[in-house]
Amino acid sequence: MWVCGALRWMRTPAQLPPRLLASWRLHYGAASSYSASADPSRVRALVYGNHGDPAKVVELKNLELAAMGGSDVHVRMLAAPINPSDINMIQGNYGLLPKLPAVGGNEGVGQVVAVGSRVTGLKPGDWVIPASAGLGTWRTEAVFSEEALVGIPSDIPLQSAATLSVNPCTAYRMLVDFEQLRPGDSVIQNASNSGVGQAVIQIAAALGLRTINVVRNRPDIQKLTDRLKGLGAEHVITEEELRRPEIKNLLKDVPEPRLALDCVGGKSSTELLRHLAPGGTMVTYGGMAKQPVTASVSLLIFKDVRLRGFWMSQWKKNHSPDEFKRLILTLCDLIRRGQLTAPTCTEVPLQDYQRALGAAMEPFVSSKQILTM
Amino acid sequence: MWVCGALRWMRTPAQLPPRLLASWRLHYGAASSYSASADPSRVRALVYGNHGDPAKVVELKNLELAAMGGSDVHVRMLAAPINPSDINMIQGNYGLLPKLPAVGGNEGVGQVVAVGSRVTGLKPGDWVIPASAGLGTWRTEAVFSEEALVGIPSDIPLQSAATLSVNPCTAYRMLVDFEQLRPGDSVIQNASNSGVGQAVIQIAAALGLRTINVVRNRPDIQKLTDRLKGLGAEHVITEEELRRPEIKNLLKDVPEPRLALDCVGGKSSTELLRHLAPGGTMVTYGGMAKQPVTASVSLLIFKDVRLRGFWMSQWKKNHSPDEFKRLILTLCDLIRRGQLTAPTCTEVPLQDYQRALGAAMEPFVSSKQILTM
Repeated sequence: MWVCGALRWMRTPAQLPPRLLASWRLHYGAASSYSASADPSRVRALVYGNHGDPAKVVELKNLELAAMGGSDVHVRMLAAPINPSDINMIQGNYGLLPKLPAVGGNEGVGQVVAVGSRVTGLKPGDWVIPASAGLGTWRTEAVFSEEALVGIPSDIPLQSAATLSVNPCTAYRMLVDFEQLRPGDSVIQNASNSGVGQAVIQIAAALGLRTINVVRNRPDIQKLTDRLKGLGAEHVITEEELRRPEIKNLLKDVPEPRLALDCVGGKSSTELLRHLAPGGTMVTYGGMAKQPVTASVSLLIFKDVRLRGFWMSQWKKNHSPDEFKRLILTLCDLIRRGQLTAPTCTEVPLQDYQRALGAAMEPFVSSKQILTM
Repeated sequence: MWVCGALRWMRTPAQLPPRLLASWRLHYGAASSYSASADPSRVRALVYGNHGDPAKVVELKNLELAAMGGSDVHVRMLAAPINPSDINMIQGNYGLLPKLPAVGGNEGVGQVVAVGSRVTGLKPGDWVIPASAGLGTWRTEAVFSEEALVGIPSDIPLQSAATLSVNPCTAYRMLVDFEQLRPGDSVIQNASNSGVGQAVIQIAAALGLRTINVVRNRPDIQKLTDRLKGLGAEHVITEEELRRPEIKNLLKDVPEPRLALDCVGGKSSTELLRHLAPGGTMVTYGGMAKQPVTASVSLLIFKDVRLRGFWMSQWKKNHSPDEFKRLILTLCDLIRRGQLTAPTCTEVPLQDYQRALGAAMEPFVSSKQILTM
């Protein structure tokens, strides 16, 4: 998840490191190429030809289905969410940007219609999700290379499947990869109502971890607090409450967190750092405040706090498809046990994409927009 | 090394974590207690009774030697440097502060005069250095507990021995503990003319590492550049040069550094971060700029840069005395091979401490003040 519109690291394929570039070619090159359709009723897709305001640059277009190769898979998309990173990518503010024109959407679930002669891991009827970011999921159907897809169990709810590969994966990896936490240990996070935040609450609870969840104040704060507590949150506090001295007293029954998860940056991240245990790690995965992360030299030296970043796309580059598949199956187990649910979703038919894009960009909207095909 | 006067994390023993507190009692408690001397000619020490400007609060006093216990060692101090951290400790701006009144100085070398009946690891004539910060080395002699001392070889130069336990140890650990560097890899650092900076240059060269050394501009910059290159520095550049776009061209023959060592904080640390390779680590060990370390969210997420801090005192708490001893012996090997020399030193007799303290606090003084007893 990356929701800061102002900061840029890489802008064009020419600036991508070789590993990212390889994946880029995979998804935006032959595997999912398209051209204006001869049969306009066949494939519909949300396409943008320029970076800019999604409301202005995204259009519903008819595309021709690419020809099937032996290693390709014909997929009918079922549902695809609108994530903050999708918006940032369209705006041109993301670490990975497609060659334009491009189909929007990096996440979603589809069903295999047909497979090429050399495809061994998938068969018609299977559910699939993107193996990496950049697939272009906002379309009714497409031909992808087999290696661009990961098969998933089809016995989980559609909304969970459609929102599985970004937020819950990010939440799980951040909870597991940076600090060796044991049941009873605590984690502090901001933006706790985000897709990742809700997944953190649930996965942490499943792992026996206690969560301190920071949210922005809002009119219906009690309703939000109740909902997050219903997911397993131990404490839900506002940014303002976190800054007050008496918060130490409120949190005294929880062990000092050795892990802080930061989706905001700026002052909010400084506050998280203040509450971190000596030797603890803060992992930044988003920059909603559009401000850098600032750490006092004394916290770094005398308290040994550690600052890291996390990007699921990079994790996938550094790990094998089998490792990603194992992660997905772990999350599916949690879903089946009722320990991990999809965030509150609003399903919107593909043709009503303008409404969905608008809702996805409004602040304080607690419902994830899911395009259905 | 910690040279920021404005930032504080811990101020009194009551605020120290238990591990630090234990060590505290060791050094400021029974082991090195003193009282006004009956024989004023015997022990002379630089004592401060209040935190403040060293020029005002430090006094040369006559002290009585503490009585020897069975586990104690009577030491005649030979030489002790004035480090930035000593100044910060007197000012009251350090992560570890003594009970007052206290004897100044955290580093130095002494010679064993006599040992208690239960002392097994040291004998008269041995050279010793402090096992931890806070020993109070600015005195002619003292009785310390055996565990407060580490024996070192006496075949190295006195100035090297007197300056061994802080800066070269810090430099070595930072070069080795954070990134697995191989010969040919590069390291970037600021404050390259500091005691740690000079040790980094030499130890890096001994390990086959190439260094990019940032210094503040000054009238005699060419002289400084020549001197640091004489120590093994590959590139010596000013802070201003580091900010210019053409620096990339100048540094193109060096691999992108995966390790940055930061003694400054603020803008200087931001510049180091910009030059760090993806996945690289910046280790902050000082805060000369009195400004926090600021990292853009995009560098953390998309470039996976890692921010850490290092404090040699904490390293010692986390490692056994044997590990510290091994580190010291490794450094002594480098010294004997001529690969690690003491920084340029000015020896000042203990009674001329006012001159030495004044010189130690002046900016751009390239010579370390060493008190001789």
